[in-house]
Amino acid sequence: MKIGVLQINPVVGDLTGNSARIVRAAREAASAGADLCVTPEMALTGYPPRDLLLYSGFVARTWEAAQRLAEQLADGPPLLLGAVQANESGQGKPIFNCALWCESGEIRQVFRKTLLPTYDVFDEARYFEPAPTGDPEANILRWQGRTLAVTICEDAWNDKDYWDTRSYARDPLEDAASFDPDCIVNLSASPLFLGKQQIREDMLGAVAAKYRAPLVYANQTGGNDDLVFDGRSCVFSPDGRLAARAPGFAEAVMVVDVDDPSAGRIAGDDFSREAETWRALVLGTRDYVRKSGFTTALVGLSGGIDSAVTAAVAAEALGPENVTCVLMPSPYSSRGSIDDSLELAQNLGIKTHTLPIAPIMDRFEAALAEPFAGREPDTTEENIQSRIRGNLLMALSNKFGALLLTTGNKSELAVGYCTIYGDMSGGFAVISDVDKTGVFALARWYNANTRKGLPGIPEAIIDKPPSAELKPDQKDQDSLPDYAVLDGILELHVERHKSRNEIVDAGFDRETVERVLNLVRFAEFKRRQAAPGIKLTPRSFGTGWRMPLACKRDI
Amino acid sequence: MKIGVLQINPVVGDLTGNSARIVRAAREAASAGADLCVTPEMALTGYPPRDLLLYSGFVARTWEAAQRLAEQLADGPPLLLGAVQANESGQGKPIFNCALWCESGEIRQVFRKTLLPTYDVFDEARYFEPAPTGDPEANILRWQGRTLAVTICEDAWNDKDYWDTRSYARDPLEDAASFDPDCIVNLSASPLFLGKQQIREDMLGAVAAKYRAPLVYANQTGGNDDLVFDGRSCVFSPDGRLAARAPGFAEAVMVVDVDDPSAGRIAGDDFSREAETWRALVLGTRDYVRKSGFTTALVGLSGGIDSAVTAAVAAEALGPENVTCVLMPSPYSSRGSIDDSLELAQNLGIKTHTLPIAPIMDRFEAALAEPFAGREPDTTEENIQSRIRGNLLMALSNKFGALLLTTGNKSELAVGYCTIYGDMSGGFAVISDVDKTGVFALARWYNANTRKGLPGIPEAIIDKPPSAELKPDQKDQDSLPDYAVLDGILELHVERHKSRNEIVDAGFDRETVERVLNLVRFAEFKRRQAAPGIKLTPRSFGTGWRMPLACKRDI
Repeated sequence: MKIGVLQINPVVGDLTGNSARIVRAAREAASAGADLCVTPEMALTGYPPRDLLLYSGFVARTWEAAQRLAEQLADGPPLLLGAVQANESGQGKPIFNCALWCESGEIRQVFRKTLLPTYDVFDEARYFEPAPTGDPEANILRWQGRTLAVTICEDAWNDKDYWDTRSYARDPLEDAASFDPDCIVNLSASPLFLGKQQIREDMLGAVAAKYRAPLVYANQTGGNDDLVFDGRSCVFSPDGRLAARAPGFAEAVMVVDVDDPSAGRIAGDDFSREAETWRALVLGTRDYVRKSGFTTALVGLSGGIDSAVTAAVAAEALGPENVTCVLMPSPYSSRGSIDDSLELAQNLGIKTHTLPIAPIMDRFEAALAEPFAGREPDTTEENIQSRIRGNLLMALSNKFGALLLTTGNKSELAVGYCTIYGDMSGGFAVISDVDKTGVFALARWYNANTRKGLPGIPEAIIDKPPSAELKPDQKDQDSLPDYAVLDGILELHVERHKSRNEIVDAGFDRETVERVLNLVRFAEFKRRQAAPGIKLTPRSFGTGWRMPLACKRDI
Repeated sequence: MKIGVLQINPVVGDLTGNSARIVRAAREAASAGADLCVTPEMALTGYPPRDLLLYSGFVARTWEAAQRLAEQLADGPPLLLGAVQANESGQGKPIFNCALWCESGEIRQVFRKTLLPTYDVFDEARYFEPAPTGDPEANILRWQGRTLAVTICEDAWNDKDYWDTRSYARDPLEDAASFDPDCIVNLSASPLFLGKQQIREDMLGAVAAKYRAPLVYANQTGGNDDLVFDGRSCVFSPDGRLAARAPGFAEAVMVVDVDDPSAGRIAGDDFSREAETWRALVLGTRDYVRKSGFTTALVGLSGGIDSAVTAAVAAEALGPENVTCVLMPSPYSSRGSIDDSLELAQNLGIKTHTLPIAPIMDRFEAALAEPFAGREPDTTEENIQSRIRGNLLMALSNKFGALLLTTGNKSELAVGYCTIYGDMSGGFAVISDVDKTGVFALARWYNANTRKGLPGIPEAIIDKPPSAELKPDQKDQDSLPDYAVLDGILELHVERHKSRNEIVDAGFDRETVERVLNLVRFAEFKRRQAAPGIKLTPRSFGTGWRMPLACKRDI
């Protein structure tokens, strides 16, 4: 039995376009000998459609699109299609997340997801009713004398032998496995965090071995807002070994004979932190820009490493000809910053505008002279500069229809070392889940691995001490701890939910910890209004970060 | 049996402060003869603490605070305390939402919430494990020969006789009622939408009558970020009649004898749309500003009705002496707008700054002359003006430590008739869930009902045609349908999830519907970066509005 995995890159909500993508991939799989095909989870709607699912009209049209798709593929191999179905029982949530068995032009069987992830970026309990209890055969597909266990994403992630603690009481895979299936199929829309594929392969391999059945895992690819889906669909032998894997970060059709999975092909991949980061940023940026209807992007270049890396990602994602960089020097900008920025743009083949801001700064100073009389300069004046730059960048964005990319990193966003409506302006925050330490590593990796001997990010940009250049001789470390210390504290507090005493116990100086945690707390209002950015860690700021604002936060 | 309802206004995360509030209220109730006391849901943490709950340290300290609170109240009547408890079973979500029975200095019994709202602004399935199944007596408290049914908020909202469709299969209240309780108690944190109290009273009365038991409903009051809790705790007789009600939008202690609830007092209230709106905006603004650690606020006055109403709310919430208004006229500002704004400020007793922006506009024009060469003026130039104003307002906010209030209404935010980083700048969006039609009604109501003969919002501000004044002779209706039509379409699309065909079928012109829905769609990126605002409708933009951005949205 040859199964064709259709690893597509859907556009959320694009029922027509996604149908076409599925048809195209299914035909390709059929040509390669597939007996049946499997799409990712909710491939028809794209994942995640979020509150589009609250529109009953959208759910109804998804079902109609599924029926049309079944008809279109009537002459080909049958298809397990990820979609949604209205719950007409009058009880519970209004829809099911499901896999539709499309055979001979009809939807012949519906498999409903049981385990609904509701944590971090996932809100499935908000929308979906779980599969009803009491029918252990609910996940069993019988076809041409074969028995398949059909599961959807999280359904396969609750094995009691694999996990120390379990998230759910039910185990639909265990139920299905009791029918001794010839194959376990899993339709997924599993977004990336760095290192996640190793976890997937380890866990799915263990499950395949436990049930002595081949396991086919079909994952979505592409960027949808803050989430990047890395594809890497794979097939495991009944002994738990990885037998086949599709490429990462790209569409693919993979056909594997599950009766002899060892004949499968394992696509080469690079699981290093920097390689995964780079590919995720490039795909996430490309898809956000294009799926939003833009073709061009803008980046403000400060002369620092964050904007340099952002520009490099943009050039790779969109083509350098579709990126414009803007230099906006002030009297506090060093000559080096200007020269380094121009060199970077030249190296990458990006055009630039240079718009000095001193004359505008003067007029703001004059306008505010009366209310500010008798007050010393403080961060207010720094923020004014940053917001002048934000205004210029947005003006270029508005006039030329180019999407403005913001350049802030995760460390800055965590402690609020950034100006709301200033450098935080923009539609998409490319590196907002990369900490400063990671930005340095990525810049070096980029120069060494992607430029093929061409000049990349100038060494001067990588080597100089980080500075916002918003007042004379300013350095980040005037206001912040060393980035190695800061990033260590932030990892414990933001990503691992450690409280201050636990962080101190881990070996950090108490005063520094208190200072950093207070900065994190007071920056919450900025993050609430931040542009979406690409999730790379298990805990990014964005749709999965849901903190109260007007509160005491003694954590 | 006299029950004291402690309708407190907690600060989210403030375990120490909330404990003190509860102790104070419990002592007051004891003095008034209460035999036992009931707090709102999660009164100790404040509701909703959101992702603070992901910090195990916070959960542990909440439990310690509950123990200390029990000890502090050892000499008084026992207390049903809304709090959280760690789930140590090794399965499911890490915590329970619970009511703790604190008696004689100890936590003696724990009642766990069964039904976990996970829709709109509610994310309870993200954090909480529901009460385990299989123990119908789990919600029964036996004390001094009495039987009480203890439920938490949503637990009482799934009666099969009351609702046509049910959200959940379980009914913990029905289970508890089978033990023939002497009283049903419900700890709630039920945020307002306009008209919600009538729904609560109708439903809770029906449940009391069905089970022939008195029902005590204890609700939180106060504003927590986007949510305003209106209090209005109440008690129902076994025949279903409303027997007592605490005041709305204020802390209160209410002691009612549930054996003779007819002796209770029903606080006067005003359920008109405008009165509820006004009280919610005032309380929500006051609490957001103060709980954020601010005492003063800034409002940019345009001469239009939105900023006038926002200034009026701020003056009422914080005292006019704590509000500063800023006029930032451009060459397109009418003389009337300036005069009307000054008159408004004078009427309300608010001080003003006037900062003309023409000189700054000139410098932006010069800075952008080269890149903009050969291009016609468009909305870009309008946005530049708006962002100059945003920069000036934020500079004043930064320099003086005053929270900037934004002034946009829901109609504008829906169709994107607002400038991101411009007039959308600010920490709190006071009227962002009031549509334009509602703003007019509120302004008239305010003048007629709150000013006690003093001048309020100048009639000229209410009567003039709405205009952004960003180019000569501009009117909102040059770009938008009449507000009556626009607001009608938006109500169907945003609040009632109707798709375009359904809206056309409801009697609106197809071309207008298409245009409005496209505007709504393209404004999604602005809403993602909008300031939090006060929820007043069942469907506000904010934490409960979760739309994808880079998508097709053919709904």
